[in-house]
Amino acid sequence: MDRIKLGLVGIGKIARDQHLPAIAASVDFELAATASRHARVDGVEGHGSIAELIAARPEIDALSLCTPPEGRFEQAMAAIAAGKHVMLEKPPAATVSEARTLERAAHAAGVSLYATWHSREAGEVDAARDWLAARRIDVVRIRWMEDIRQWHPGQDWILAAGGFGVFDPGINALSIATRILPQPLTVLAATMDIPANRACPIAASVRFRTGSAEVDAKFDFLQTGEQTWQIEVETDAGLLRLTEGGGRLERPGQPSLSGPDREYPRLYRAFAELIRSGQSDVDLQPIQLVADAFLVAERRIVDPFQF
Amino acid sequence: MDRIKLGLVGIGKIARDQHLPAIAASVDFELAATASRHARVDGVEGHGSIAELIAARPEIDALSLCTPPEGRFEQAMAAIAAGKHVMLEKPPAATVSEARTLERAAHAAGVSLYATWHSREAGEVDAARDWLAARRIDVVRIRWMEDIRQWHPGQDWILAAGGFGVFDPGINALSIATRILPQPLTVLAATMDIPANRACPIAASVRFRTGSAEVDAKFDFLQTGEQTWQIEVETDAGLLRLTEGGGRLERPGQPSLSGPDREYPRLYRAFAELIRSGQSDVDLQPIQLVADAFLVAERRIVDPFQF
Repeated sequence: MDRIKLGLVGIGKIARDQHLPAIAASVDFELAATASRHARVDGVEGHGSIAELIAARPEIDALSLCTPPEGRFEQAMAAIAAGKHVMLEKPPAATVSEARTLERAAHAAGVSLYATWHSREAGEVDAARDWLAARRIDVVRIRWMEDIRQWHPGQDWILAAGGFGVFDPGINALSIATRILPQPLTVLAATMDIPANRACPIAASVRFRTGSAEVDAKFDFLQTGEQTWQIEVETDAGLLRLTEGGGRLERPGQPSLSGPDREYPRLYRAFAELIRSGQSDVDLQPIQLVADAFLVAERRIVDPFQF
Repeated sequence: MDRIKLGLVGIGKIARDQHLPAIAASVDFELAATASRHARVDGVEGHGSIAELIAARPEIDALSLCTPPEGRFEQAMAAIAAGKHVMLEKPPAATVSEARTLERAAHAAGVSLYATWHSREAGEVDAARDWLAARRIDVVRIRWMEDIRQWHPGQDWILAAGGFGVFDPGINALSIATRILPQPLTVLAATMDIPANRACPIAASVRFRTGSAEVDAKFDFLQTGEQTWQIEVETDAGLLRLTEGGGRLERPGQPSLSGPDREYPRLYRAFAELIRSGQSDVDLQPIQLVADAFLVAERRIVDPFQF
């Protein structure tokens, strides 16, 4: 089968660390060009903007966008208007309404739109979902606690309005929870800690409902020492623990599992399948839950934060 | 045709001012019973809760919920589980995720769910929509400014977490804007003024996008003197002004129109048509836009507010 000609838009850290290796190893795609204001990839045709890329290479079939969420709506609309299939880094847009507008536009244009959630492709997420499918869910605990200074040094935008704050990583937990839990989640209540000099929360507690069970979630950007990205689910058959961001799974009476990290290769494989079957995949539950938490939150002003 | 047996849940001000007169005048419904913790309607069977009403009157076909949004999710789920058609006051739930969960549950149960937006039924909203359908939209201005002390005296919940603050009335403007503008809206940016002793905004500015035009919206709960509920739309054919909450319409070169207030009779007529045709109507754009505005907002702490 012919490879799908792909343009990669936004050549930053996530593009170099994850997208470029996954595309290079893919049997489905060939990287035809990139677009980035300043960055170039050795040996690949580079353009200064998505508009220039689209104009210069009309035969390109698909565009993968890994620019920051702000501004991605306009880029995705331009790509859809040019008849390109589009893959979006998480979160798919700055707001839910934007993402829904993209979904409608892609449907009308007859192109595939893929709103990716890379953490759902972590090694043991599918195994966790399968194990939970037949259980009664009693209590869920989400703990997503990391050091912003280690993982996002100097990234002021993440705490600015529209940056999601601690929900920038926290949305990964919600993407996994909405995948592995058999019932949809809704927000019951939220408390957010906002540094006096910032717009977005640096820590948050959220209570969700899933079926008749409650989910107790804690997100913290000021975690030093051991970093924690885990979900625990108490069930009628005992405790499931999904740790290491979905990479490790423990269940009662069974050896722990630890699958390989194939998140981005799996995303590109899924994107190719969507294109070839004429489908889209735009699940907005994770960003919807974040927006709903912001809607109902109690806010506490806490100490100013400096990197 | 047989009248649809209706239960009315939540006997407060909006029930007495609007729902009861509309039901009494309706040829589609007969009021079979009410549910309210303390209130009763003269001459109508009254129960203390929705559960008691459902248990006592299994032949009731439909329930209309005009309780406050918090807690309405559980009531609506109970009604759907009992096989009742459900009509919801605005906003349809405390969050978008809750409303979507209700929508899925109603679909699975084969009952009609109607998320009402009463302001969409104001006298001149349809005429505004029809006139705008063929125009180029250049600029939209929303001004929704009222005195909280006059319209919501002592209602502390409206400024508490989950109360929506100034978006409790403001969502009416958004329900009209999403009905009359030909293109969907998305949030670009928002600024919210939060009283130091409250959780929700007492004033807000939001910029939206609709197609390639911008919408400039101002919401204010501290408006004394003249009260303003209006939407202005600059088009290629001149200025449209929809004032008095949708009740009055001015267009270039034509006499102004001012239709009668038939909001709630129209809602009940629409509910009857949904039930008889086996359909649901759950448009969540207004609450989605509010949640998206909360997600991206800059917040300013302003003077404490006391009623």
